[in-house]
Amino acid sequence: MSPTRTADGAAPGRVGDVRRRNLALLLDRIDPQGQATRAQLAAETGLTKASVSSLVADLLESGLLTEAGVTRDGERGRPGVGLVLNPLRGAIGAEINVDYLAVGVLDLGGTLQFQETVERHNRGSSPGDVLAALGVLVHRAADAARQAGIVLLGGGLAVPGLVDPDRNVVVTAPNLGWSAVDLSAELAALLPAAPFGVTLSNEANSAALAELWYGHGVSFRDYLYVSGEVGVGGGLVIGSELFTGPAGHAGEIGHVVVHPEGPRCTCGGHGCLEKFAGQQAIFSAAGIGDDSTALRMSHLLRALDAGKPRALAAVEQAGHYLGVAVASAARLMNISAVVLGGHFAALEEWIEPALRRSLANFAPGLVPDGSIAFSGLRQTAALTGAAGSCLRGVLARPYELIS
Amino acid sequence: MSPTRTADGAAPGRVGDVRRRNLALLLDRIDPQGQATRAQLAAETGLTKASVSSLVADLLESGLLTEAGVTRDGERGRPGVGLVLNPLRGAIGAEINVDYLAVGVLDLGGTLQFQETVERHNRGSSPGDVLAALGVLVHRAADAARQAGIVLLGGGLAVPGLVDPDRNVVVTAPNLGWSAVDLSAELAALLPAAPFGVTLSNEANSAALAELWYGHGVSFRDYLYVSGEVGVGGGLVIGSELFTGPAGHAGEIGHVVVHPEGPRCTCGGHGCLEKFAGQQAIFSAAGIGDDSTALRMSHLLRALDAGKPRALAAVEQAGHYLGVAVASAARLMNISAVVLGGHFAALEEWIEPALRRSLANFAPGLVPDGSIAFSGLRQTAALTGAAGSCLRGVLARPYELIS
Repeated sequence: MSPTRTADGAAPGRVGDVRRRNLALLLDRIDPQGQATRAQLAAETGLTKASVSSLVADLLESGLLTEAGVTRDGERGRPGVGLVLNPLRGAIGAEINVDYLAVGVLDLGGTLQFQETVERHNRGSSPGDVLAALGVLVHRAADAARQAGIVLLGGGLAVPGLVDPDRNVVVTAPNLGWSAVDLSAELAALLPAAPFGVTLSNEANSAALAELWYGHGVSFRDYLYVSGEVGVGGGLVIGSELFTGPAGHAGEIGHVVVHPEGPRCTCGGHGCLEKFAGQQAIFSAAGIGDDSTALRMSHLLRALDAGKPRALAAVEQAGHYLGVAVASAARLMNISAVVLGGHFAALEEWIEPALRRSLANFAPGLVPDGSIAFSGLRQTAALTGAAGSCLRGVLARPYELIS
Repeated sequence: MSPTRTADGAAPGRVGDVRRRNLALLLDRIDPQGQATRAQLAAETGLTKASVSSLVADLLESGLLTEAGVTRDGERGRPGVGLVLNPLRGAIGAEINVDYLAVGVLDLGGTLQFQETVERHNRGSSPGDVLAALGVLVHRAADAARQAGIVLLGGGLAVPGLVDPDRNVVVTAPNLGWSAVDLSAELAALLPAAPFGVTLSNEANSAALAELWYGHGVSFRDYLYVSGEVGVGGGLVIGSELFTGPAGHAGEIGHVVVHPEGPRCTCGGHGCLEKFAGQQAIFSAAGIGDDSTALRMSHLLRALDAGKPRALAAVEQAGHYLGVAVASAARLMNISAVVLGGHFAALEEWIEPALRRSLANFAPGLVPDGSIAFSGLRQTAALTGAAGSCLRGVLARPYELIS
């Protein structure tokens, strides 16, 4: 055997399969907000201390791990050096929605370091124009990351529509007016130097994953995340994993039929939840005019605070139909917990009682009160999930950073 | 090593893990309606011909395989003895529904050998009385099987409700009025001598599996099976496997809310599909009186044939709301095919156009015309699936028959 071969027999410069698996295994044992010593990692993985030391050396060199000072291995343990996921490595998270663009930097420790949201009317805009505007925000965030010493490894872009992530194609995003849009070139251009590139996802799926990794999801293993934007999206988490269905598009609760005599929807159907509980539906039912979304939302909240009947009725109606759709989802998918994000979270105080009444009427006992949660991530949920997906990909394939 | 040990090192009288796996592997390679030679099995599994011969000897002795005469191994092969799943081994399939009991014998080749359905009003009957009545049918079927030389290995019982198959408990069956009914003793008494016992399942899930194994399912990998009885049940097949959700109760399309102002349902909810498309709902809307179900169904079919407006409108309404629920299921679970059984299959000619119109209105493009299928198994679907589940369990654990 050549003396330059590594312990697992792989030639230098090419990480062997066993070593690849062990590198990912070690990273999986380190909680994003916690730390571990080499001795703890050896005990938890069953690897020898020598193997762990060799693997950790690679991970330190790759920049994914960093040393955090001396820590103790439990009560009786000797002091060891604490290893943490390096907060100076991160990913860009971005979201295109109907009336805003949002970008942030998520570090490996799970902290959202920079975040910027700008209003922009993207409905009917050409994908090229929207991506150019998004590119300005991404570059600003990348500059901020650079100044803070954060190395960007990749990114994720969430959009309000059905996507084919393998081909970087937006299959359909009715509220943007997009159909069969190939974003490969635009995604490649956003972060050309990042080793893991930029991937595409559905905004509600990304937000559902953000809840799982960084939000309420930690207490539910199975839930439906409902995203309230201009559209209403959904992401289904079963057994702590995203359930996307046979073709990748499961969870579309916004287009569940909640009233068969209801109005026509952008999806081509009729009586969809989105037509009763989407932002435009609520603003319109509340009689709130055609300002920007942020202004309309603050008008709505003021009207609700003041007890204006029309505003209260609009949110009551949204909660009622949200309950109809969640009841049907609970029956079909055997889901007993729901996490509500976007404007549903902003309207929690008013929409929650209406939702509870509706669930008691349509699916008594199926979704207990303690299983209705409101997202604390608000408008950052989708971009956090998109960046988080990228970072989880990095942690699963650390060998791509090791020569 | 003791000379009495078998080729895989296991002691005689105790089948080792490797041999267990290989026994099941061989059985998995034999199509229920086809045959295979020892040489083909060796080629397909990568096992040596000597191992295959030894394993086949055990399977012949267990009675699961039998020899079917000389066959050729492909064009150039030498003749070999064809091995088939033994049609003289089988399982009882049974179904309790609201107004009938049904029992049949399914053999290992997938043929339903005996089948008997009797009308019986089970709503509100005590589980003990219903199981006693079912026991009479089971014994009659078991006698018929014995006379035909079929050895019964076990059985399956399908009920119209949510079940816990591990504990043999009917969690809730609203249309029977049953809740938390433990059937362990009754199931054990049905076929006391059968080595694999009798297991419990949901009727729509069993029917969905019967379609997968013996019906339309062979051309769809992903579909929703909708069972039309007094209740409306559903079974969800994804990737050719039953998807039962986090707690085992997914697919309950009968309680999807199709009209929020609709009537109260036995489930405690309101406006469920069952209240518009279940048998009683259709008979009642068609103005067909309180005879037996079989009589009412023949009255309905005559009225439809004669073009009676009220009957036509009742089935049109059922198809319309069935489309509402299937549209919502397609959105939530990303399903693009549906198989309709029970009375929906009996009403195919009239309900199909209404269903297509409804799907075009509520989920245009999501469920193509070629992806709507009607079950050919009719009232035997659930019992066939229940017996089939038992037989698949036998084929996965053949070593339980080998000493």
